[in-house]
Amino acid sequence: MRATTTVDLLVRGGTVVTMDAQRRVIPDGFLAVHGDRIVAVGTAAEAGQYRAKTVIEAGGKAVLPGLINAHTHVPMTLFRGLADDLALQEWLTKFIFPAEAKNVTREMVRAGTRLACLEMIRSGTTCFVDMYYFEDDIADVTEAAGLRAIVGQTIIDFPVPDALTPQIGLAQAERFIQKYKTGHPLITPAVAPHAPYTCAPETLIACRKLADKHGVPLVIHLAEADTETQTILERYGRRPIPHVERVGVLGARTIAAHVIQTQPDEYAILKKYNVGVAHCPQSNMKLAAGVAAVPEMRAAGLAVGLGTDGAASNNDLDLFEEMDTAAKLHKVVRRDPTTMPAEAVLEMATIEGARAIHMADRIGSLEAGKLADFIIVDVSNPRQLPNYQLASTLVYATKSSDVETVVVNGKLLMRDRRILTLDEAAIRRETATFRTRILESLQK
Amino acid sequence: MRATTTVDLLVRGGTVVTMDAQRRVIPDGFLAVHGDRIVAVGTAAEAGQYRAKTVIEAGGKAVLPGLINAHTHVPMTLFRGLADDLALQEWLTKFIFPAEAKNVTREMVRAGTRLACLEMIRSGTTCFVDMYYFEDDIADVTEAAGLRAIVGQTIIDFPVPDALTPQIGLAQAERFIQKYKTGHPLITPAVAPHAPYTCAPETLIACRKLADKHGVPLVIHLAEADTETQTILERYGRRPIPHVERVGVLGARTIAAHVIQTQPDEYAILKKYNVGVAHCPQSNMKLAAGVAAVPEMRAAGLAVGLGTDGAASNNDLDLFEEMDTAAKLHKVVRRDPTTMPAEAVLEMATIEGARAIHMADRIGSLEAGKLADFIIVDVSNPRQLPNYQLASTLVYATKSSDVETVVVNGKLLMRDRRILTLDEAAIRRETATFRTRILESLQK
Repeated sequence: MRATTTVDLLVRGGTVVTMDAQRRVIPDGFLAVHGDRIVAVGTAAEAGQYRAKTVIEAGGKAVLPGLINAHTHVPMTLFRGLADDLALQEWLTKFIFPAEAKNVTREMVRAGTRLACLEMIRSGTTCFVDMYYFEDDIADVTEAAGLRAIVGQTIIDFPVPDALTPQIGLAQAERFIQKYKTGHPLITPAVAPHAPYTCAPETLIACRKLADKHGVPLVIHLAEADTETQTILERYGRRPIPHVERVGVLGARTIAAHVIQTQPDEYAILKKYNVGVAHCPQSNMKLAAGVAAVPEMRAAGLAVGLGTDGAASNNDLDLFEEMDTAAKLHKVVRRDPTTMPAEAVLEMATIEGARAIHMADRIGSLEAGKLADFIIVDVSNPRQLPNYQLASTLVYATKSSDVETVVVNGKLLMRDRRILTLDEAAIRRETATFRTRILESLQK
Repeated sequence: MRATTTVDLLVRGGTVVTMDAQRRVIPDGFLAVHGDRIVAVGTAAEAGQYRAKTVIEAGGKAVLPGLINAHTHVPMTLFRGLADDLALQEWLTKFIFPAEAKNVTREMVRAGTRLACLEMIRSGTTCFVDMYYFEDDIADVTEAAGLRAIVGQTIIDFPVPDALTPQIGLAQAERFIQKYKTGHPLITPAVAPHAPYTCAPETLIACRKLADKHGVPLVIHLAEADTETQTILERYGRRPIPHVERVGVLGARTIAAHVIQTQPDEYAILKKYNVGVAHCPQSNMKLAAGVAAVPEMRAAGLAVGLGTDGAASNNDLDLFEEMDTAAKLHKVVRRDPTTMPAEAVLEMATIEGARAIHMADRIGSLEAGKLADFIIVDVSNPRQLPNYQLASTLVYATKSSDVETVVVNGKLLMRDRRILTLDEAAIRRETATFRTRILESLQK
């Protein structure tokens, strides 16, 4: 007689896409969760020993690691569609900067984060990397929503809603980091120097020191725009990546967003410091920033994840679309239909994304011992059929609306599309209030 | 006292996006439908005189012209995801051509069309332009599903499932055209010479003569691949567009798909014959064919619509994604965030699409006298909020799953996401049968 193990949650019957080192896909699989951890993964035949309080039958569905959004600005969801299709300077100076100056308060940040968390849970994102202001409020709301996040307090050389100077920003970042740094189950605090063109070398160094002092990630926009390359070349005589290396901001647990304006010899610099890259294809397309050399960076051994960027420049937080776009964009740019196959972008949204944000030891794959962050996705919608190859179905034919169930840290956040941690009606009301307020603020 | 007019269907309370010449958007609007026609469009205040058997309350929703898919191969939906991320020749010769040779029968074409119609109705497409084999079966199934289509019988110089020679194909096309050409409410028959590299000049001329004899559209793949340009240059000493003009295949109601390999002086040729262009951004990306010069073609006065191409090279039939991708792709290719604004791609999916397929006198906008082809779309999903600008919301933040109600030719095909004309369970079963059959056929 076999011993029986009681666990909190058992998922059985689905196709388990582990994204483990062997990239095992288990057609009739199971997943056992106890507390915040995955305790076993295998074939349904092996599930017999587990008894659970909650059992989810996932027959005909796919069970995937939760998707990782490696770069976003969640409160900006309240600016979604405020102004589109404009030249970058006009968009920033006439809309985004004034809207931020007049509206970004703790209250607004909390409301925007709630709206974003709702969208992320519904679309299968279980972990995100944020960079904005009032990050303690973002952390607080994210925790209440039940999502996992690296939450980066922005440091920048001009006055921003939560700090008149970078020194004030740094002091604030340190308080925030101290509050969350010790083993919080969901929140990893980080310091986020905005970009090399908005932060002087002293500011960048101070950010690196703060990150090292507390052992937290450092998040930065890097090599995003042509104008950045020109500015950095003019000011410092080097291109952005060699510049940030020289300044000394690259180091442990660095996450760089965009990384478009690169030369092949610069990948080695990023590799040397194990910098994770957040590729944001839809935002880069919409803002016409350019196309990052993702196949080349992957070939150079860099960890490249996927990000949506903020909803103001996308205009959603949908990693299923981001996978589809990443797979297609690099094909047409290189005129090579074999580059970036479905399996590669699925990696970027899961295990490689985890590697890019320096959390691959804990998330990104479904393996015993890892944190229980996973999603259950319908793959039998008529528009996904006949479903010959699962990776292809997931990347090219699955929509965020196919995500049915979301678990983070062992806790159900959505079950059969019913949101369990957020009050959708209240979020709608709150969003309507801010919509009016933001529109009025721009008319003044 | 005002007279009362009784109509069949009244939609009221929604934001009516007319896409008429003034591009009127009526915030609290109505739409009255009688028989197959729109009889009135206006503000809700003007709706008082209308009484209807069926009233749809559309408060908080957008009412749009049905989306037009200007290029697809609907039966290929059964090959969705059969093989992806391969070099073009390998994909065609190892998978698509063998799969077609072994599986394309009347029965398969009917099943694939049913699956495609289900997906198109669910995603808000009301009219499509098809090019495949056994088009009489495609027409028959499309009619039963209630969709509108231009159905083009493919003519090609090598043996295909429904014709051993182009002569047999032409005879078959003529029988098909004669059956449907006189005022069918939904189906417009067409002749579809496959492409200049697969059809000799004699074949192309025969197709043009057939189209002219019966006054039907001519659908052709044109200037899709580099290899096509090389082949046509070698064979005929001209690039594809000058070649097809010289041969004489351009003429009334021509619809050309892809049109990627162009030079600026070739737009005038297309314009001279009023050729409509079907731009297929996602397929062109996935197959690495290139990026069509859409802003330039639009500037040259060409009508450019949007197509998904077949689901084997996309892998879906989703025009909401196609709009989003078209808006973003041309921005990054031109490094200009102002090109292809949301309004432009919304035109391409509606009134410009109608112009491209030579049906703008009947469909593509919501105006009294036009055929009643429209969709009702939710715009209050949290991931669409705050919804500052409707065109932006529709293009950048709306998903096909937001389409709630679909009307074609005055008839409800889907209401509140319930499909009324197709048996979804039967389609699933039928698809599963063909899945097995197609997989087995490739193992022989």
